[in-house]
Amino acid sequence: MPERAIGIFDSGVGGLTVLKELLKVLPGEQLYYLGDTARVPYGTKSPGTVLRYAQEAAEFLVQQRVKMLVVACNTASAVAVDALEQRFSLPVVGVIEPGARKAAAVTKNRRVGVVGTEGTIRSGAYSRAIRAVDPNIEVFAAPCPLFVPLAEEGWADHEVAYLTAREYLAPLIERDIDTLVLGCTHYPLLKKTLHQILGPQVQLIDSAAETAHLVAGLLGERNALRSSEVFSPRYFVTDESTRFKRVGGAFVGAELHDVTQVDLEPERETKDSALC
Amino acid sequence: MPERAIGIFDSGVGGLTVLKELLKVLPGEQLYYLGDTARVPYGTKSPGTVLRYAQEAAEFLVQQRVKMLVVACNTASAVAVDALEQRFSLPVVGVIEPGARKAAAVTKNRRVGVVGTEGTIRSGAYSRAIRAVDPNIEVFAAPCPLFVPLAEEGWADHEVAYLTAREYLAPLIERDIDTLVLGCTHYPLLKKTLHQILGPQVQLIDSAAETAHLVAGLLGERNALRSSEVFSPRYFVTDESTRFKRVGGAFVGAELHDVTQVDLEPERETKDSALC
Repeated sequence: MPERAIGIFDSGVGGLTVLKELLKVLPGEQLYYLGDTARVPYGTKSPGTVLRYAQEAAEFLVQQRVKMLVVACNTASAVAVDALEQRFSLPVVGVIEPGARKAAAVTKNRRVGVVGTEGTIRSGAYSRAIRAVDPNIEVFAAPCPLFVPLAEEGWADHEVAYLTAREYLAPLIERDIDTLVLGCTHYPLLKKTLHQILGPQVQLIDSAAETAHLVAGLLGERNALRSSEVFSPRYFVTDESTRFKRVGGAFVGAELHDVTQVDLEPERETKDSALC
Repeated sequence: MPERAIGIFDSGVGGLTVLKELLKVLPGEQLYYLGDTARVPYGTKSPGTVLRYAQEAAEFLVQQRVKMLVVACNTASAVAVDALEQRFSLPVVGVIEPGARKAAAVTKNRRVGVVGTEGTIRSGAYSRAIRAVDPNIEVFAAPCPLFVPLAEEGWADHEVAYLTAREYLAPLIERDIDTLVLGCTHYPLLKKTLHQILGPQVQLIDSAAETAHLVAGLLGERNALRSSEVFSPRYFVTDESTRFKRVGGAFVGAELHDVTQVDLEPERETKDSALC
């Protein structure tokens, strides 16, 4: 069991921020990363569709015989972690629990903001997870749909990102939050811009780092840690790899090698006959 | 034949700008519109993946016995029109040809700009189509990946859209273009902002209107026009319809009724056994 890989998946490149943290904390583990780049993004799609995609992604990784699943996507974590745990006999770690626990631990005035995709915010998953730790915490959430395309365009520190963030964050600043959860794996790239707007009195919670620590802890408890060699991650994508390598490289801070294109959709019959 | 519907497809809501023009020009036609909202967008995906999605979308519409296919998506038009024409014995109209012809007709200084998604610009389809009409025209192209999310966020007239457009258009302004092709079905929503930046001396070409005129002409030539009743469009989407209705309503300028969710992916087997 320890010698098996850890399976990580996301809709695209965003989950690479989680992979990067896992590489720091667990350099002796083999990581398999699946980005569903043919169907990205998940954040604007319905819970039913995201659940189906997450199940197909998880199934692929389970077939690669991984020892654990990390759902490195907030939208998928919000709707799929419980279902995946029931379906596969493997530990499944999402990014919402770890970020929520950390936020509940660090807030002093018990006023926490959460930013994320439409899907994540609409699910209310962070709010529930934070208030499960401490029901006296007030949670204020704001969807920020433009943050992902801004990060992918490489404009995280651009004036446009600053103006966009100022508008999205205004209602949270009004609520006097002292903690902000970055509830989307892309958002750590915007940290500098968010800090500029919120000031040093608001602490930013990056789920990626918290998730990596939780994964290490769980594997330790189960004596499933591996530590002998240093492995390079293997990457799987559902679209061609060119864009994944280009945009994803900036997320990991290194070139991405060993990228394979795979198909998560079931076998299709070829129907070549004209129908009318 | 005349009594059959016209089939229109796009990755999501963008093609509704084409549907809107068709409703104006051909009020007596029944329109079927398919938005592949479970896999939107196409603009950042590879030609191979976009071609596969376009074939699945076209097949669905052909099964509904439409008399013509309108590819109301620039990215799909750039890679799929020829393949669809070969596969189905139906007229297939894309949005690139009509926009390109109009641009070639109106430019005076023979310096034409084209804006579009990464996929459309990378394909070079507009450049080829414009220079097929007049090889002496110089074409300058710029991908504008943030325009689609800005339009969908309802920020088309926002300061953020203005700053973004100013940056994207700067290299085209430097080239002294007198004509700009809006090479993405979302972009007509940004017309006001683009006019502000480019000034009145640059003419904006909206492929949606040109495409509707071409469709009317083709149906007329074939005696396939229908004119008796007034029909409401039928909409098909691959994700749940909530977001489509909300965002799409702004594109058509009316509420969207009669929206049905369909599945374009082949039948999947249920595999419920845990694999490890």
